[in-house]
Amino acid sequence: MPRTGRRAGGGGTREKILAAARAHFSEVGYDGATVRGIAAAAGVDPALISHYFGSKEGAFIAAVEFPVDPAEFIPRLLEPGVDGLGERLVRFFIQTWDSPAGSPMLAVIRSVVGSERAASALREFVSREVLARLAAAIQLDQPELRATLAASQLIGLAMLRYVVKVEPLASAGSDDLASWLGPAVQRYLTDPAVTSP
Amino acid sequence: MPRTGRRAGGGGTREKILAAARAHFSEVGYDGATVRGIAAAAGVDPALISHYFGSKEGAFIAAVEFPVDPAEFIPRLLEPGVDGLGERLVRFFIQTWDSPAGSPMLAVIRSVVGSERAASALREFVSREVLARLAAAIQLDQPELRATLAASQLIGLAMLRYVVKVEPLASAGSDDLASWLGPAVQRYLTDPAVTSP
Repeated sequence: MPRTGRRAGGGGTREKILAAARAHFSEVGYDGATVRGIAAAAGVDPALISHYFGSKEGAFIAAVEFPVDPAEFIPRLLEPGVDGLGERLVRFFIQTWDSPAGSPMLAVIRSVVGSERAASALREFVSREVLARLAAAIQLDQPELRATLAASQLIGLAMLRYVVKVEPLASAGSDDLASWLGPAVQRYLTDPAVTSP
Repeated sequence: MPRTGRRAGGGGTREKILAAARAHFSEVGYDGATVRGIAAAAGVDPALISHYFGSKEGAFIAAVEFPVDPAEFIPRLLEPGVDGLGERLVRFFIQTWDSPAGSPMLAVIRSVVGSERAASALREFVSREVLARLAAAIQLDQPELRATLAASQLIGLAMLRYVVKVEPLASAGSDDLASWLGPAVQRYLTDPAVTSP
């Protein structure tokens, strides 16, 4: 999948497809969108969507400039098993935000909070491509709820550390944060004892 | 402290002070603002600020329409001691968001994410009036970090349940959420065992 700037070969077509994809996702949501629909909106052959973006997921990631690819990072974090998964998730999340990818992540959060439509499409994308992959690895009751609870801790960290920048959370070290947050996320994912009273 | 609509007696003065307070907080932040400064910006006597809002804190709460008063709810939640504080915080937070106060809370989140200045003033307000009060009750190492970690879980819950509305978190029952999230928040506040590796 080419990662390319605007001026690279075929950049004009790619940009045209991305603009059409943004409109299509905004109109029908992530779940309702199709490669064929994006192609029709852009007035190109569906094979071109696959050529540039690989899949609907790839097109969405490029359209909203989502800086990480769940089809890549979730299997990688799950590969060693569920032991220690909480800490691996926390570390990956902090690494991503502390890297150049943090700035597009911030833009994604701003668009979600600012627009109901952006929130809706991103909710579908994250539910299907991030949370469902995580939930599928959890061999316990309520896997979907567990995955969203884990995500809620990570998003809250992003809000206070990177958006609102509350101290001392904003300048805490990543090892320190991993040792605080890792076990909490792990408990959501794999503690069998949590039940409704 | 009158809770009043715009048309109540003195409403014109109150609204004029609120507009001046918003400008003053935006200009100098929460920490830099003073009752005297708000009064000067509004062209009124400082005694009027106290009359309408009680304090700088009260003026800020009214200016940004923050729907709960930390000077009231934090001491109330702390009153039974730190045992069970995590669950009480989670329940109070969910109750607030599920009540008519949820809608102004959403507006506060939108303004914080949309504006660096709003984020900065709210960060100072929350640090000083919410988190510092919470931290003061924690008789352990790193009380400020503990308070921000607890807050990060609550804010993340708000983001996924009320802003992005990810299922099944968005429609989970409050008892269920309290039993999942309460112990996590409690651990941040009172677990002595958490240390950096």
